[in-house]
Amino acid sequence: MSRENPGRPKRADARRNYDRILDAAAAEVARRGADASLEEIARRAGVGSATLHRHFPSRWVLLQAVFQERVARLSDEARSLAGAYPPATALTKWLLSLAVFGAATRGAARALLQATGSTGSSAPDSGCERLLMEAGGDLLARAQQDGTVRDDVTVVELVSLANAVSLAAEHTPDAVRHATRLMGIAVEGLGVSGHRAAD
Amino acid sequence: MSRENPGRPKRADARRNYDRILDAAAAEVARRGADASLEEIARRAGVGSATLHRHFPSRWVLLQAVFQERVARLSDEARSLAGAYPPATALTKWLLSLAVFGAATRGAARALLQATGSTGSSAPDSGCERLLMEAGGDLLARAQQDGTVRDDVTVVELVSLANAVSLAAEHTPDAVRHATRLMGIAVEGLGVSGHRAAD
Repeated sequence: MSRENPGRPKRADARRNYDRILDAAAAEVARRGADASLEEIARRAGVGSATLHRHFPSRWVLLQAVFQERVARLSDEARSLAGAYPPATALTKWLLSLAVFGAATRGAARALLQATGSTGSSAPDSGCERLLMEAGGDLLARAQQDGTVRDDVTVVELVSLANAVSLAAEHTPDAVRHATRLMGIAVEGLGVSGHRAAD
Repeated sequence: MSRENPGRPKRADARRNYDRILDAAAAEVARRGADASLEEIARRAGVGSATLHRHFPSRWVLLQAVFQERVARLSDEARSLAGAYPPATALTKWLLSLAVFGAATRGAARALLQATGSTGSSAPDSGCERLLMEAGGDLLARAQQDGTVRDDVTVVELVSLANAVSLAAEHTPDAVRHATRLMGIAVEGLGVSGHRAAD
């Protein structure tokens, strides 16, 4: 698991608490979205409220740390997949993870992005969006060079599509399953094997 | 153009105003979403506020009429497409229209659906959702019987996917183009012709 948050403490015991809180927060965010309860997160992590507040002075800081860590993991995952699978398979698996990431963190990721102004504007993002585009762009480039993924799609379009699926899935009872299924359909298309529906 | 709203007046001159207001409202909703200005709608339609309010006593009633008419048109369109194109092409074209419909009416359609409780609950919808499912279901069944669209997708999944694309596109500057492009990618999939990316 990658622990790339800049605020991660140096001391081992503090770091252990920090990581526990982050894991508990990720689980709560997956369950409740941006409304995740800080009390419940502290309880799950087995720490007191004071400890939680020392590491994460506000809900905002905590959500941002959860989000950054998940983006870092997605970026790591892109590299692992590239090493383990043929290019088109690696790209497909990563897009499924991306769609599930959005659906599982529910509105939290988007609320953060909007609040920091990193969507809508064409200019500066929080670094997270750039990381995702780079990770997906590498996988897409390999698959297009390989000749197994069509040349005319861009990484921005594929990330938009994964985001679309997340948005539609996030309010459904089984968001992860729903996101996986819809993204799978979008990657494969509607045609039967060897036949494009749109031809 | 189908004029199936039950509230449509009987008298010719009143009907003309009603239709004008509806067309103006559809244009304003496409431009501004559920925040469409009633004053601007009356102005575009060339009627006074009193006339608008006589036909549509509230913003809610007006938005609902716009939405119902567009759903009726989508249902008509499914039948026309089925008569004019091979099954898979008809389905593809209809899904593009559905995605564009959602993106162009922005949050309005969804706000309405949520307010009437017709999403999220498994039970009673406004009739509109049923109409769309029937229209899409017929097209899908024909394409699957024809052997040109894979057997394992359901109409609920395809409508979800079109809804996903609408959600992602609705806040972009060129929502119609964006929705068309993303839905086109989802229908065709990422594979180069004759090769599934996910294989």
